[in-house]
Amino acid sequence: MQRKGPVWYEPLKTCGHARLGIVHTTHGTIETPTFMPVGTQATVKAMSPEEMHRIGSKIILSNTYHLYLRPGSDLIREAGGLHRFMGWDGSILTDSGGFQVFSLDDLRKITEQGAEFRSHLDGSKHQFTPETSMKVQMDLGSDIAMAFDICTPFPADYERTRRDMERTHRWAARCKHAHESDVQALFGIVQGGTYADLRKASAESLADLDLPGYGIGGLSVGEPKPVMYGILEEIDPIMPADKPRYLMGVGSPDCLVEGVYRGIDMFDCVLPTRTARMGTVLTRDGRMNIRNAQYARDFTPIEEGCDCYACTHFTKAYIRHLFHSDEILGARLATWHNLRFLERLMEDIRAAIREDRYEAFRNEFFERWPVKDGER
Amino acid sequence: MQRKGPVWYEPLKTCGHARLGIVHTTHGTIETPTFMPVGTQATVKAMSPEEMHRIGSKIILSNTYHLYLRPGSDLIREAGGLHRFMGWDGSILTDSGGFQVFSLDDLRKITEQGAEFRSHLDGSKHQFTPETSMKVQMDLGSDIAMAFDICTPFPADYERTRRDMERTHRWAARCKHAHESDVQALFGIVQGGTYADLRKASAESLADLDLPGYGIGGLSVGEPKPVMYGILEEIDPIMPADKPRYLMGVGSPDCLVEGVYRGIDMFDCVLPTRTARMGTVLTRDGRMNIRNAQYARDFTPIEEGCDCYACTHFTKAYIRHLFHSDEILGARLATWHNLRFLERLMEDIRAAIREDRYEAFRNEFFERWPVKDGER
Repeated sequence: MQRKGPVWYEPLKTCGHARLGIVHTTHGTIETPTFMPVGTQATVKAMSPEEMHRIGSKIILSNTYHLYLRPGSDLIREAGGLHRFMGWDGSILTDSGGFQVFSLDDLRKITEQGAEFRSHLDGSKHQFTPETSMKVQMDLGSDIAMAFDICTPFPADYERTRRDMERTHRWAARCKHAHESDVQALFGIVQGGTYADLRKASAESLADLDLPGYGIGGLSVGEPKPVMYGILEEIDPIMPADKPRYLMGVGSPDCLVEGVYRGIDMFDCVLPTRTARMGTVLTRDGRMNIRNAQYARDFTPIEEGCDCYACTHFTKAYIRHLFHSDEILGARLATWHNLRFLERLMEDIRAAIREDRYEAFRNEFFERWPVKDGER
Repeated sequence: MQRKGPVWYEPLKTCGHARLGIVHTTHGTIETPTFMPVGTQATVKAMSPEEMHRIGSKIILSNTYHLYLRPGSDLIREAGGLHRFMGWDGSILTDSGGFQVFSLDDLRKITEQGAEFRSHLDGSKHQFTPETSMKVQMDLGSDIAMAFDICTPFPADYERTRRDMERTHRWAARCKHAHESDVQALFGIVQGGTYADLRKASAESLADLDLPGYGIGGLSVGEPKPVMYGILEEIDPIMPADKPRYLMGVGSPDCLVEGVYRGIDMFDCVLPTRTARMGTVLTRDGRMNIRNAQYARDFTPIEEGCDCYACTHFTKAYIRHLFHSDEILGARLATWHNLRFLERLMEDIRAAIREDRYEAFRNEFFERWPVKDGER
């Protein structure tokens, strides 16, 4: 345990490769493994900060690219930082903006210096570099800033993946150089696509930078799940044991269980909230769409035993009615349930590690959760 | 005071023509004057039942026409009634469905028997009569059912208004005959357009039916506000003093103050919630649109001193950002504020009557609230 800097990791226990710990930030403590709900535009869609506390969330993710464009990171700095602006006193991790900028395709140009891009909102021209990403994230005042990296798409050949990775390492060093804060930590990001030797080289190279935590980027971008799991196994022994490990953009319940099994501490994903707004809700037996006709007269909750506001107060029939009537409360209840479902899953995961029975927990989980052939 | 039936009115005090009282229902007591938020499709748009309690709402309105079509009043009866279906244990008033059916224009045909209409959802054919309206409202199980009436549009000539009114009276008698419930009360509806003599005749005729309460319909449909106020003054002495009086579809803050001044106990209106979702918020100084550029860096609440969740936790700049980013939380916070604003206004109104200073309260209110010439 190293208690230096604004963010540090306190390892508590391992069970196989699974890790129980605490991430300490300026805004509190986060028991890990943890799932971070996504609040792209300074709000977890459909939820209030008060509700995020009730769900048990300790840390959320917000998006640098979106906030930089609207309302502007200068405005948020003026408001006293992102926490005050959005009324959230828990922890916040911001991404670097890179992932969104590189998703713009025709709207961007990448050089060694950084990326030029046009706003998806009004077409205006902007440049993001490792230095500007640090500046913007420092303005936002999140607890954890992510290094500006290149997320290599899948599939990509070895040479391109290597070049992207090497640039990512050079950018990580520039980020570290540009980053100055007493309240915010900078995490590096391991890249290297689906190539085990590149991933290991990336993990080693970034470990040398001695940053307080590390993201694992460029996974869950189209490759089969077992490929992702294989990469996690390869880098597990290389990643520093005394730093938190964050698997970026991954949040399917089976991937959470499998990621923790391979040493991951932090996750985020937009799908549990995005699909909730289309009526897809999570249960231990898999996903269901609450809009389906079979729930029209189902006067039971989404999931028996769930302690969320939706399940303790409303039936499937009512929530289905809300979705068919385009009522905001439908999106709210489905989102609430999905986020609480994931928080409870993480609570169960942590309890299983604490009690030295993670392997058994994982087996029980997959007795109910449906997995396609070759997806585990 | 008459303590018979499931709904009864307890007069507490008058101050001029303004009345302080309590409406007792199977689901609790409602201090009057009161404003009823509208929950058209079995939900007050953007709000949860828990939040409605926090705001202080004791009674909401829901729409028979909409619920009959979707999800169906049979389904709601099967769910245990509207209260259980939507998770609201306060009181509920349902309208008769008439107003919506008669708004369908090309889609409906009216006879002495009732109204044939086509669903705005799928074009299917339906008939509403006084008897079916009662049946549907009894299935919904609201605390207060409204009689099936004809809401004469403005302008309308004397003869048409008289014919509509007389049919409304015959239908009210049929409603009373068809209505059977130990837990639900039936309110009649005074019609008569903008003609004082018809309004007085309508109030008298309905008083003879000895129903437990009365709506005043067909106002705020396009006529100047002073015309509406004049009608209220004409019928005030005729309306039974021991029954609650409900001015239907009226909820502008100035109309609430002026309606109470003329003896009204209950109000409802969809505008405070509908316009909230477009960014219009209420303050004692009038309405403002939170989307406006002038609030971009306004780090103060919508209204200083307001105790609602929006005003105690968020700034105008943040809520403006939410609206410009199409975030659900924007609609939620603006709705929450507007409903709490109206609830607080009604609390202040009741305190002023209780303390025998309603005239002074009204004058103070209009020192700040902007009213156009001839609108008072």
